[in-house]
Amino acid sequence: MHTAPARPTSLAPGIEPVVHPGACARFWGELRGRPAFACVIASTDTAEIPGISAAGETPQKRQYTAALDSEFLVLGRPVTLPEIPRNPLGPPSPVVITRAALQAVGVEALVVDAGTRIPPRTPRLDLGGEPGRCITTGHALDLAPDLEDRARAAGRYLAATAPWLILAESVPGGTTTAQALLQALGVPAEGRVSSSMPGGNHELKRRVVARALEAAALRPGAGALSVAAAVGDPMQPAAALIALEASLRVPVVLAGGTQMAAVAALALRLCAEGRPGRPDRISVATTRWVAEDPSADLAGLMHHLERPVPTVAAALDFSDSPLVGLRRYEEGLVKEGVGAGAAACAAFHVAGLSPAQLREAIEEVVRGLGPA
Amino acid sequence: MHTAPARPTSLAPGIEPVVHPGACARFWGELRGRPAFACVIASTDTAEIPGISAAGETPQKRQYTAALDSEFLVLGRPVTLPEIPRNPLGPPSPVVITRAALQAVGVEALVVDAGTRIPPRTPRLDLGGEPGRCITTGHALDLAPDLEDRARAAGRYLAATAPWLILAESVPGGTTTAQALLQALGVPAEGRVSSSMPGGNHELKRRVVARALEAAALRPGAGALSVAAAVGDPMQPAAALIALEASLRVPVVLAGGTQMAAVAALALRLCAEGRPGRPDRISVATTRWVAEDPSADLAGLMHHLERPVPTVAAALDFSDSPLVGLRRYEEGLVKEGVGAGAAACAAFHVAGLSPAQLREAIEEVVRGLGPA
Repeated sequence: MHTAPARPTSLAPGIEPVVHPGACARFWGELRGRPAFACVIASTDTAEIPGISAAGETPQKRQYTAALDSEFLVLGRPVTLPEIPRNPLGPPSPVVITRAALQAVGVEALVVDAGTRIPPRTPRLDLGGEPGRCITTGHALDLAPDLEDRARAAGRYLAATAPWLILAESVPGGTTTAQALLQALGVPAEGRVSSSMPGGNHELKRRVVARALEAAALRPGAGALSVAAAVGDPMQPAAALIALEASLRVPVVLAGGTQMAAVAALALRLCAEGRPGRPDRISVATTRWVAEDPSADLAGLMHHLERPVPTVAAALDFSDSPLVGLRRYEEGLVKEGVGAGAAACAAFHVAGLSPAQLREAIEEVVRGLGPA
Repeated sequence: MHTAPARPTSLAPGIEPVVHPGACARFWGELRGRPAFACVIASTDTAEIPGISAAGETPQKRQYTAALDSEFLVLGRPVTLPEIPRNPLGPPSPVVITRAALQAVGVEALVVDAGTRIPPRTPRLDLGGEPGRCITTGHALDLAPDLEDRARAAGRYLAATAPWLILAESVPGGTTTAQALLQALGVPAEGRVSSSMPGGNHELKRRVVARALEAAALRPGAGALSVAAAVGDPMQPAAALIALEASLRVPVVLAGGTQMAAVAALALRLCAEGRPGRPDRISVATTRWVAEDPSADLAGLMHHLERPVPTVAAALDFSDSPLVGLRRYEEGLVKEGVGAGAAACAAFHVAGLSPAQLREAIEEVVRGLGPA
């Protein structure tokens, strides 16, 4: 495990570097104005493996997690089912953080659908993708031949709407597909990715990923997109390509924890293969709960990437919250999702909120949900 | 027919008022910076009526018009079929104007899908709508109960991305549905809407609209959305609601000819029914070919709306073009579509292009298409 470096004074209070503090300060020091915020959602059948995910109260409800997160994010209320997703032990989805933070910054979110079983009842930017199969098939995605054109068009569009871009995700089961993609790209990710399960589920993830890699039987030197198609989820190639294209124009913050480490690794590899992009304009932002997750090692993952990717964490602290659902975030029951960490960083950086002020805004959002 | 008023000097050269010249000058005088540009596409089976539309070379190819226009607009090339839409007599789709104009302004277009049979292979903002039935059924649209929520969310999003919004359309058969909606809303539209057919097809339109209104048997005082559902196309309610919501934040230019007169009429009626919106921030922009169409009367339509809607036309003139396909625009073979007129006005207003400079840029785009 790596010790968190000290926060350079040029980062807004509440934004802490996870790795490469100097690069973090330079990256965030150049961000001006309101960002665009897009959340790439997708389904993967990997989430159906018992015990793999707690991003949703029950396995059946988990199928609705991306839809309900998106609806709450955009419309302010869930539509497809009456309630937003919750961890089985009670805490509400991190979308409550994202919603409060984006409201503080004055940003309207865009949902990008990379392939969902249950599409949200919001406007959604459809990229023509399909839900992913379980990665243990070794053939998780049928990538459309024009996925790159569509994802790059989305990236070009998003980059034209604001001076910087936050690219988030909501993919139940996504930390397992992240581990598989990272390992397939040569990053030693075993035991390092976070989980929505308390204490992590590394042994289960290890077995699932081993089966996936065996079934995929990837040849050395396989192209990065075919690696993602073999053992990834639909969000990963879409987000990586959107980020690369957008980076040609504006700085991009990949909003998530170890899932975005996998997207960053994929984007860097795609660039190394000669695809257009500005990897120096790509960074990662997550929450303190991921950065300090004792069952994971985001900093270690980031240190193993092909080049330094500035990575920060939002120093959210719910331990003093009057709301029991939020206090349980401090037990590691919910850590990240829907770009919560990056949205919080934007609230600190753009709107000048303190972590305590943002916590109060989040509490307001949670109170609006009614009784848990 | 109304005579075009003189151009107030505060309008950029190339932008001519069609009605309400003072209001036009005030509206455009307040537009600063680059607009957002969204094109709302939809299918209506009304387009299958023989002789109703020439927006596409053959009836079969016409089903692809919205998809191909969108692909060329966003990707710079058609994907679903090898060529962009053409009038049966040769002239290329007005998307060549839109593409050239938006490139000059530096704007990336967003495709909003309100219900298409053949979706474009671009990123598309899906509103969950279905293609429309033929209006002669009197029951053209099954509007989803949450259409208003989704369309307003799209309007809120779009209004947050730029200081003003151009809202365009691509709907083959859309002038007939425009006439039906206008008449159902009490606007005397018979003989006043434009057509992609040379010389117009007013007698056919009159019969189709009469059958639609008879089949719909609308009660006096029927709500505006149910009127559109009875005799309209899916673009109309989506565009009207997007425009109303966006107008709460930014000025909105409805980009089209008589089709956008119908959307304006619908938006005004929705407002009169108490729905949120700022009708004083809604205007229309089209091309000279529509404004001066001897077979139609846009100015007359606009004068019959419930309140003044500033309406301008782009003074495009292809009569001296070396390209025969463009010269045939001057015969009235193609007049408007994909927001060509408003995009041209943006090129004049924002990028400072003269009509001659824009024509040259359009010629470059057409040359890139290869032989007709």
